[in-house]
Amino acid sequence: MGEATIGIGVIGYAFMGRAHSQGWRSARSFLRPALEPELVALAGRDAEAVADVARRFGWKDTETDWRALIERDDVHLVDICTPGDTHAEIAIAALAAGKHVLCEKPLANTLAEAEAMAAAAERARANGVRSMVGFTYRRVPAIALARKLVADGRIGEIRHVRAQYLQDWLTDPHAPLTWRLQVERAGSGALGDIGSHIIDLTQYVTGERIVGVSATARTFVPERPLPEPDGHRTGKVTVDDAVAFLARFSGGAMGTFEATRMANGRKNALRIEINGSRGSLAFDLEELNVLRFYDGTAGGEAGFTRILVTEPEHPYLAGWWPPGHLLGYEHGFAHQAADMLNAIAEGTDPEPSFADGLAVQRVIGAVQASAARDSVWTPVEQSTQVA
Amino acid sequence: MGEATIGIGVIGYAFMGRAHSQGWRSARSFLRPALEPELVALAGRDAEAVADVARRFGWKDTETDWRALIERDDVHLVDICTPGDTHAEIAIAALAAGKHVLCEKPLANTLAEAEAMAAAAERARANGVRSMVGFTYRRVPAIALARKLVADGRIGEIRHVRAQYLQDWLTDPHAPLTWRLQVERAGSGALGDIGSHIIDLTQYVTGERIVGVSATARTFVPERPLPEPDGHRTGKVTVDDAVAFLARFSGGAMGTFEATRMANGRKNALRIEINGSRGSLAFDLEELNVLRFYDGTAGGEAGFTRILVTEPEHPYLAGWWPPGHLLGYEHGFAHQAADMLNAIAEGTDPEPSFADGLAVQRVIGAVQASAARDSVWTPVEQSTQVA
Amino acid sequence: MGEATIGIGVIGYAFMGRAHSQGWRSARSFLRPALEPELVALAGRDAEAVADVARRFGWKDTETDWRALIERDDVHLVDICTPGDTHAEIAIAALAAGKHVLCEKPLANTLAEAEAMAAAAERARANGVRSMVGFTYRRVPAIALARKLVADGRIGEIRHVRAQYLQDWLTDPHAPLTWRLQVERAGSGALGDIGSHIIDLTQYVTGERIVGVSATARTFVPERPLPEPDGHRTGKVTVDDAVAFLARFSGGAMGTFEATRMANGRKNALRIEINGSRGSLAFDLEELNVLRFYDGTAGGEAGFTRILVTEPEHPYLAGWWPPGHLLGYEHGFAHQAADMLNAIAEGTDPEPSFADGLAVQRVIGAVQASAARDSVWTPVEQSTQVA
Amino acid sequence: MGEATIGIGVIGYAFMGRAHSQGWRSARSFLRPALEPELVALAGRDAEAVADVARRFGWKDTETDWRALIERDDVHLVDICTPGDTHAEIAIAALAAGKHVLCEKPLANTLAEAEAMAAAAERARANGVRSMVGFTYRRVPAIALARKLVADGRIGEIRHVRAQYLQDWLTDPHAPLTWRLQVERAGSGALGDIGSHIIDLTQYVTGERIVGVSATARTFVPERPLPEPDGHRTGKVTVDDAVAFLARFSGGAMGTFEATRMANGRKNALRIEINGSRGSLAFDLEELNVLRFYDGTAGGEAGFTRILVTEPEHPYLAGWWPPGHLLGYEHGFAHQAADMLNAIAEGTDPEPSFADGLAVQRVIGAVQASAARDSVWTPVEQSTQVA
Repeated sequence: MGEATIGIGVIGYAFMGRAHSQGWRSARSFLRPALEPELVALAGRDAEAVADVARRFGWKDTETDWRALIERDDVHLVDICTPGDTHAEIAIAALAAGKHVLCEKPLANTLAEAEAMAAAAERARANGVRSMVGFTYRRVPAIALARKLVADGRIGEIRHVRAQYLQDWLTDPHAPLTWRLQVERAGSGALGDIGSHIIDLTQYVTGERIVGVSATARTFVPERPLPEPDGHRTGKVTVDDAVAFLARFSGGAMGTFEATRMANGRKNALRIEINGSRGSLAFDLEELNVLRFYDGTAGGEAGFTRILVTEPEHPYLAGWWPPGHLLGYEHGFAHQAADMLNAIAEGTDPEPSFADGLAVQRVIGAVQASAARDSVWTPVEQSTQVA
Repeated sequence: MGEATIGIGVIGYAFMGRAHSQGWRSARSFLRPALEPELVALAGRDAEAVADVARRFGWKDTETDWRALIERDDVHLVDICTPGDTHAEIAIAALAAGKHVLCEKPLANTLAEAEAMAAAAERARANGVRSMVGFTYRRVPAIALARKLVADGRIGEIRHVRAQYLQDWLTDPHAPLTWRLQVERAGSGALGDIGSHIIDLTQYVTGERIVGVSATARTFVPERPLPEPDGHRTGKVTVDDAVAFLARFSGGAMGTFEATRMANGRKNALRIEINGSRGSLAFDLEELNVLRFYDGTAGGEAGFTRILVTEPEHPYLAGWWPPGHLLGYEHGFAHQAADMLNAIAEGTDPEPSFADGLAVQRVIGAVQASAARDSVWTPVEQSTQVA
Repeated sequence: MGEATIGIGVIGYAFMGRAHSQGWRSARSFLRPALEPELVALAGRDAEAVADVARRFGWKDTETDWRALIERDDVHLVDICTPGDTHAEIAIAALAAGKHVLCEKPLANTLAEAEAMAAAAERARANGVRSMVGFTYRRVPAIALARKLVADGRIGEIRHVRAQYLQDWLTDPHAPLTWRLQVERAGSGALGDIGSHIIDLTQYVTGERIVGVSATARTFVPERPLPEPDGHRTGKVTVDDAVAFLARFSGGAMGTFEATRMANGRKNALRIEINGSRGSLAFDLEELNVLRFYDGTAGGEAGFTRILVTEPEHPYLAGWWPPGHLLGYEHGFAHQAADMLNAIAEGTDPEPSFADGLAVQRVIGAVQASAARDSVWTPVEQSTQVA
Repeated sequence: MGEATIGIGVIGYAFMGRAHSQGWRSARSFLRPALEPELVALAGRDAEAVADVARRFGWKDTETDWRALIERDDVHLVDICTPGDTHAEIAIAALAAGKHVLCEKPLANTLAEAEAMAAAAERARANGVRSMVGFTYRRVPAIALARKLVADGRIGEIRHVRAQYLQDWLTDPHAPLTWRLQVERAGSGALGDIGSHIIDLTQYVTGERIVGVSATARTFVPERPLPEPDGHRTGKVTVDDAVAFLARFSGGAMGTFEATRMANGRKNALRIEINGSRGSLAFDLEELNVLRFYDGTAGGEAGFTRILVTEPEHPYLAGWWPPGHLLGYEHGFAHQAADMLNAIAEGTDPEPSFADGLAVQRVIGAVQASAARDSVWTPVEQSTQVA
C-alpha cells in the first residue's frame, strides 16, 4: 500500500538466520523503512528443518540450494547467515547476479577472501548494487548515541580506548569441540568471533583506525571431547580461547583489547570505554539500553550519567515503545535491516561496507602476526577508509 | 506442519495492539507453543489505519467493528487491547460467543464491571472457554524466577514488600489532558494504570493476598491544556497523578506501595523488593533481565547476587538467544501468548484469571476508599483466590 | 599555636563515644576548625573500661560520674553519647552549667523531655551557650551537596520524597532482647533509632517540614531470648521492629517512609530519593560517597549522574584526601565537630538545634499516634522552625 | 596499661605522612595491636610546618633531620613517607640502626636501589629487625577477602587477570609540571606511581608471579607549565602519562594491565577482575567496601554477588563499626600499622617484604624495557618469592 517493496532472501536458518528473520519483519512492522521488505525465501540444506523455521517466521518459500535462492527473480537482496568459510563464494556470486548483499560478520575467514569480496562489492557498486557487512552492534542505540557524542566533540581528543568482549561458554573444559574451535571452519577463535566486534565498534565510535598492535593469544584447554555421538574421543582445539592486544589509533589514542570465552560469569560482556580530553563514554552490552557519559566540563556535578537510551529522540527509538521500555538483543537486526533498506532506496552506500569488513580483517591479521612473533609491535595495513 | 493451529483476533491496533501482534507471532517463531497461533484478524475503527498496521504485522484480514471480529468462525481467541472502559462489553460478548479471551489490564474501570466479567468467565469456563487478564509483567523471566524462589522457600517467611512504579511523563505541567487523565475513560490515574501492575505482581510473586490498606492520593497539576487542536484551552484533571499506600499481606508482611507519573528521571521504574526471614529479592523493570537475590544463609559471602536471567534454564528463556543476549519489553507478550496457548491446549485455566483481575480491582477500590477517608485502614474484600 | 582551643568532655565510651572521640581528634587533624578541640575528659561508669578507651583515643583524663565531668573548668563543651533516656537530665544540667552541648540523637525518648531540652537550650542561648543535636548524617558530603542542589533550585518544586532506612540485624528471631527492644530504655524501636534519621534528613535536604502522616507499625518477633547469661528465658519485645508511614510536606510533596531492622541483606541502607519538577536526587548510605542527580533539563543526555562526592570543591572535602579517595562512616563525626566548633567561634547557632530535634520528635509522636488509631491521617504539631 | 608499647617515628608530613599518622593512632584506638604504638616523633625539613602537623595529629615531638629521628632511643620503628628517590638512603640507615622500617611504595626509583634495600632488609632480619613496604591497598578488607577466596580455591585455576588503575588529574594539559612528572624524582610516571599497586595486588591476590610482559607507554602532553611562580614557562614531561601491558602469570593466566592519569572521570579507579575455572572476582577502589564474587557452581542462581565487606567476620572489620557502616581510604593505613605491629610482637616477617617490593620493581623494569623495544615480550627476573 504505497511503499515500494523489496524481496529478501536469507541463507541460513540457525541462530543468525532466525535473528535476521525477526529483524526483517520487525523492521517492516515498527520502523517504516523506505522500502518494505518481503520475506520471500529462506535457504538451508535440510529441507524439513528450513521449512519449519520458514513457516514459523512467515517466509513465503524455501530453497535447499543457496544458488537457487540467488537466481530467483523475486529475491532482490541476499542476506548471508552461514559460517564464515562460505561467505566469499556466496557473496561474490550474489553480487555478480546483481543482488544487494548483507553478509554476516566476520566478512571472511581469510584476508584473501575478504579482499576478493571487497573488490567484488566495489565492482557491483558501479551498477548500483549495495553491500553491507553485519556488524549489528553498530545498531545498538547506545552505541549510535556514543558515536554521535564523539562526532559532536563532546569528549574531545581521544586518549584511551578500552574494549573487552568477555564470554564464558568455554570455561568448562568438557565443553565439546564444535566447528567454532576448528581453525579451518572458524578462521580463528575468540579473536574473529567476538574480537572482530570490538575492533569494528571502537573504530566506528571513535571515527579513527587502528594503526598498530601488540598481541598475545592463548588456548587454555588444548584438547576437548568431540561433539556427540563421538564424545568419548577428544580432538585438538586449533583456535585461540582468548586474545589480548595493545593498539594505537590513528589519532594517537592508546587502546587495550581483550576477547575471551573463558571469563567466568561474563555472559556477553562487550564493554567499551573511551576517555577523551573533555569527557568519557562507557558501554556494556549486558546492559545494552544504557550509555554512560562523563561530561568533564560539568564542574562539581560531574559524574558518569547513566543515560537510559530509550527516548524517542535517541537513535532508532522513534518506532518502538514509550521511554523506559527496554529493547533487547534482536532489535539491532531490525535497525540494521532498516538502515540497509533506506540506503538502497536513497541510492547511497550502506555502512559498514565490505571495505570496512576488510579493514577489521586486517587488524585481525596484524593481531595474529604479532602474537606469533613475541608480541612485537605490528602495523596494520591501511588501504581502506573506515566510515 | 503437525501442530494444531488456533485463529487469533486482536481488537485495537495502537500501542497495545502492536505489542500483542508482535507477541503472537514471536511466540509462534521462537517458543513452539502447543497450539500454533494464526494472525487472522485485527480490528479497529479507522479502516485505513488498521489496514496499515495489519499489513506491517502480517495479519490476514481486518475488521472495523469488534462484533464482526468476534463472530468470525476463523477467530477462536479474542485479544482485547482497547481502553478499559470497553473491556467488559467486549469480553462478555466474546465469552458468550465461545471465544477464549485475553483481556488487557486493568480488567475494567469499575468494580461492578470487573465482577460481571469474572462471573462471565466462570460461566464460560464450564464450556471449556478460557480467559486471562494481561498482566504481562508476570512473564518477565526475572519475575517468574522470583516467584519460583519464593515458592521454593529460598527467602523464608515474608516480612516486607516494597513496590514502586515510577514514571515521569506528567512531570511537565504543560503535558496535555489526554483520555488517561479523565476519570470517565481511565477509571483512575497512576493507580489503575501502573499501580495495578505492582498490586498484581506482588501478590503473584509472594503467593499472598493484600488484606488491608491505608492510602493517600494526589493530583499535583489539577488543570492541563487540552490536546491539540484545543491546546489553547485547559481542562480539569480528574484522576490521581500519584498514589501511595501501606498494605498488609495475608501472611503478615508489611507492604509499601507507590505509583506515580511524576518521578522525574524514572521512565519505567517498576521496582519490587521483598525481604524474608531467609533472604531477599529485588527487581527493577528498567533492568528487566536482572534479578537480585540475597541468600541470608551464605555467611561471609552473602550479598545481593545480580542474576542475569538469560540462561536456558531460566523461565521462558529456552527458545531465545544464547546467555547474556538480553530480552526487551515486548518479549513478555510472546511469553504471555505461549502460556495462554499451552493452557488452552492442555485444557487448564491460564493465569491470571479474570478472578485474579477482579482481586486487583478490589485492592484498587480499597485504596480509593482509604484515600477518600483520611487514609484510615481499609480492608480488602477477599472473595477470590489469587493464583 | 595560634588557634584558640576549647576543652571537650564526652559522656559515654561505647559505639557512639568512640565515634565522637575519633570525630573530635580528626576534626583537629584535618579540618582546621576555628577552635581547636582538646580531648580533656571521657566519662563512663566503669572506671577500668573508660580508662582503657581514653588511653587508646588520647583523652587526657577520665571521670566516672557525668556530673563531675560537667563541673570541670577545663571542659567547655559537653558531648552526650549515652542512651536516650539519660539525655534530658544531662543536657539540661550541662546547659545550666554554661557548657555548650552536643547531644546524640534522638534528642529524648519522650516529647515532654524533648520540649524541656529545647526550652533549656533556648534559655542558655541567651548567654551565648550553644547546643546541637547529633544528626550526623547531615554531614555526609553527598547529603550536604543534595541540600545545596535543592536550595539552588536544581530540582525545582518537590513532588516526591521517598525515604527508607533498612537494616537487618533483627532478622534472626533468636537475636537477644537488648535494651534497644525495650520501650522504657529505647523509647521506640526502628522508628526512633533509625526512622528519626530519615525524618531529619528529608526535612533538612528539602528545607520543608512534615505536616501530616498516616502510619503503621509492626513487631514481627514479639518474644525473644534475654541476653546472656539469661538466654534460656525469653522476654517481650515492647518496641516496633518496623514502621512505615505516608507523609505530606509543607510544600505539598508526597512522602513515603519506612524504617526496619528486618530487611534481610540491607545492612545500613538509608536511602532517600527526591523527585522535583526540574530534576531528582538519590542517595544510599551504603554508597555514602555518591550522590545521584538527574537534571531534567538535559534533553537527550539526561540520566542519573553518579557524582563521586570526593572533589575538593564538594562540602567538607577540602581537608581530606585527593579526589576518588573515599570517606567512611566516621568522617561525619569529624565534620559535625568542626561545624559546631566553627559556630561557637563565630557566635552563631549550630544546626540542627534542639528545636530541630524536638521537631523530629513531634513527627515520631504523630507516627505513633496514627499507627495506634488505624493509620488515620494525623497532623504534626508545628511550633518550631526547621533549619 | 597492660600492652607493651613501641615508639613510632614518621619521616614526611605531607599527604602520606598524614595518612600514616592517622593510621598509627587509629590502629591503637580501634584494632588493639599486640604492641601499642606511641606517636613519638614526626620529621620534616620545615620546622614550623612539621610542628603544626605534629600538634594536630598528637605527635609528642618533631625533628627536622631524618637522621636525628633515626638516632632517637625512643623511636623503635621508622616509617618512611618521603618521595621515592630518598627511600634507599633512609631505609638502609634505619635498618643499620636496628630500627624496624615501614617504607612507602614504590620501594625505590631504581632497580639498583631496590636491590640494595632488599639486601639490607635481609641482613637486618637476622637481628630480628623487621621491614615492610607500604602497599597499603593489600589491607583493604575486600582485597584481603579476595585473596582468601582465591586461596580457598573458590575461583579455581586462574585464567584471566584484568587490572586497571585509572585516574584523571593530568587530563588538563595545563596541569603543572610537578616533581611527579620528572623522571629524576619520580622514577617513572603512572607506571611506578599507580601501576605498581596493581602489579603488587594482582600478585598478592592470585598468589602468582608475573613472569613476562609486553608493554607500551605514552606521554600525551609532552610539555607543561612549570609550577607557580614559574607558570609562564614550560618544561618537558619526562615520565609516562599512561602505560599498558600484557602479562603472563606463573600459573599460566593471561594478564592485561593499564595505568593512566588521563582517564577522564575516573578518579581513583583501581579495578581488578580475576576469572578462574570455578568463579570470578571483581573489585573497584572507587567502591572499596565491596567485593563482587561469581560462584560458577551456583547453577541458575549464579551471578556476581555484591558482598558488602563490612561484617565482623570479614578481614580487619572486627574492631570497627556495625555492618553496613563503611570504611574509607585511610583505614588501610590503620590495618597496615596493626599488621606490622602484630608481626613484630610475634617475631614473624610482615608482608609485603622489601623482597616483594623488589619483585614489583622488576616487573616495572621489564615493562619499561618492553615499551622501549617495540613491545617485544620481555621476561621478568624471578629471584624472589612473592608472598
